[in-house]
Amino acid sequence: IPWLTDYHGNPSSTHTAGKRARAAIDQAREQVATLLQCNAQEIVFTSGGTEANNHAIQGACLPHLSRRGSIVTSTIEHPAVNTVCTFLERLGFTTCFIPVDEKARIDLTKLEESLTDSTRLITVMHANNEVGTLQPLQEIAKLAKARNILLHTDAAQSAGKVDTRVEELGVDLLSIAGHKLYAPKGVGALYIRDGVRLDRFMHGADHEGGRRAGTEAVAQIVSLGKACEIAHLEKDTRRAHLRSLRDQLEKRLLENIPEARVNGHLEHRLPNTLSLSIPGVNANDLLARIPGLAASTSAACHSGAVTKSAVLSAMGVSDAHALGTLRLSTGCFNTMEEIEEAAKLIINAAKSGSPMS
Amino acid sequence: IPWLTDYHGNPSSTHTAGKRARAAIDQAREQVATLLQCNAQEIVFTSGGTEANNHAIQGACLPHLSRRGSIVTSTIEHPAVNTVCTFLERLGFTTCFIPVDEKARIDLTKLEESLTDSTRLITVMHANNEVGTLQPLQEIAKLAKARNILLHTDAAQSAGKVDTRVEELGVDLLSIAGHKLYAPKGVGALYIRDGVRLDRFMHGADHEGGRRAGTEAVAQIVSLGKACEIAHLEKDTRRAHLRSLRDQLEKRLLENIPEARVNGHLEHRLPNTLSLSIPGVNANDLLARIPGLAASTSAACHSGAVTKSAVLSAMGVSDAHALGTLRLSTGCFNTMEEIEEAAKLIINAAKSGSPMS
Repeated sequence: IPWLTDYHGNPSSTHTAGKRARAAIDQAREQVATLLQCNAQEIVFTSGGTEANNHAIQGACLPHLSRRGSIVTSTIEHPAVNTVCTFLERLGFTTCFIPVDEKARIDLTKLEESLTDSTRLITVMHANNEVGTLQPLQEIAKLAKARNILLHTDAAQSAGKVDTRVEELGVDLLSIAGHKLYAPKGVGALYIRDGVRLDRFMHGADHEGGRRAGTEAVAQIVSLGKACEIAHLEKDTRRAHLRSLRDQLEKRLLENIPEARVNGHLEHRLPNTLSLSIPGVNANDLLARIPGLAASTSAACHSGAVTKSAVLSAMGVSDAHALGTLRLSTGCFNTMEEIEEAAKLIINAAKSGSPMS
Repeated sequence: IPWLTDYHGNPSSTHTAGKRARAAIDQAREQVATLLQCNAQEIVFTSGGTEANNHAIQGACLPHLSRRGSIVTSTIEHPAVNTVCTFLERLGFTTCFIPVDEKARIDLTKLEESLTDSTRLITVMHANNEVGTLQPLQEIAKLAKARNILLHTDAAQSAGKVDTRVEELGVDLLSIAGHKLYAPKGVGALYIRDGVRLDRFMHGADHEGGRRAGTEAVAQIVSLGKACEIAHLEKDTRRAHLRSLRDQLEKRLLENIPEARVNGHLEHRLPNTLSLSIPGVNANDLLARIPGLAASTSAACHSGAVTKSAVLSAMGVSDAHALGTLRLSTGCFNTMEEIEEAAKLIINAAKSGSPMS
């Protein structure tokens, strides 16, 4: 708050107010680095997870603009990854999309087979945004390192919820999104391993050590630093809390809606995420009946045709299950009472609704 | 502030909290549109002026990727414009840099001569960041319209300080930077005239009507809207205030430092900007002696070699004048007492310092 109300210095300025802002950004960089267990100078601040992904993927490929090459990714990436690949295809790069199994885990054999001398980057998300499945990044890192290929991961969903120490994961580039760990919307960061040279994404003046142009969003950056500090300090209690709430919600719903099914990997999964399919129910209609519940869906039905999310499609989920899919997640500030209330609302709505609309 | 402390909805969500955030963004879009006198749907929010410039220039050129073409710009643009042109040169586009005169006004004859059938974009700043000179955008717009060429202007320096009604200026694309008009750092907007199709810059999900991906920075956007609303309501008093302070500062400094000279155009100039050269003085040393004064310089001297800003170079300012150049600007919240104090500090520092270091 004080960075919005009292301290207005531009961190690029050498006067007193500027130096204070610079010091605040330096501290935030240390806080983010502590969460990821990297060096502060390996962190570049961005306007969010989307920009971090654009920066990482374009930045890793564009140094190879003259000879092009390929990007290897999965079929269940967020649009902030796969549409960047599509853009690079217009510049002559190719993309290889590796399939996932029914639990949304990537096919490591196919991934290994796809790697060539002209593979410029592997980009595979850490945790899936819809179903929460965690990918075997350490295995992927071994394949990448053996061939000297850069590895990027979109950790927007996982940072603050599971371990994201970059050395443990073995990644060269990692994106985080502030609002996924209780910083404001509109700020993020990209970890760039020391020694990795990326092209710039945001062109302009020499902010962020010449890596990202644009006057620094001081208040946003300070917030992200603080959020990362808290996420790091409270990591064990936070994860246990998220998991206990999610597990209780899952238990209640499965007990009372026996036809329901959990999507994703039951073991390798974020502690807060629950993707639940109730065949025969239209999840959009169900949520419309309980507007106070903040949740979303994975499919829609227009003129009798089902449009399901790319993630569920890649997992081979049927239309009937997709249309009945609720995306639920628990938060640090939720209580067990709220979870019980949410379960009741969903159970009642599922039982009272028209079977299909 | 409430958008940081109480309301955390994601504007893309259809639940209650999401709808509230969506409504706030809609209101902010109207407020920005009122300042620029355009339609709300012609505004896209960005992470700042730098992103708006990247978006405008890349977005206007990339639809022509297969046949390339040229960009026409000036020699005194901000790096957030000219480095984007340099990036596009790597993709096969060419850039034509039009010179300016000694007052930093663009050469309209040379600009007209540079326009061809393959000119994809003219991008010329509205007001220069160092010397405040305003460019003849209406004249440039006539040349552009006659040839059906898109015209972009970087109005980061001018919005809120002089008239930036887009119809008056005749531009198709216009960038603003929040912190230049008292919104926080790290938010901006791009005006895209209805009917102008740009490629995306930030790739990802379908935020901002499919024009800019990334979860909306709600608090930042709300702040920008409010800042534009105030800038619009107070435009006359604000400009008069800025001008009276600037003129007084200029008068005091010229009275007491008779060898000083004002850079830029005395008539076509921002009301708040003062670029003042004191030959024989090292402006960096001068400012170092008065750290409480928030100001900057335009040149540096290393190992006897003078590095001057691209703007002063393009204007033909000599090394001696460049090294003695102070960049001063007045703000809405400054008082005449502060101006008198600032003038005294500068005059004393100019007289007491070693002549050159």
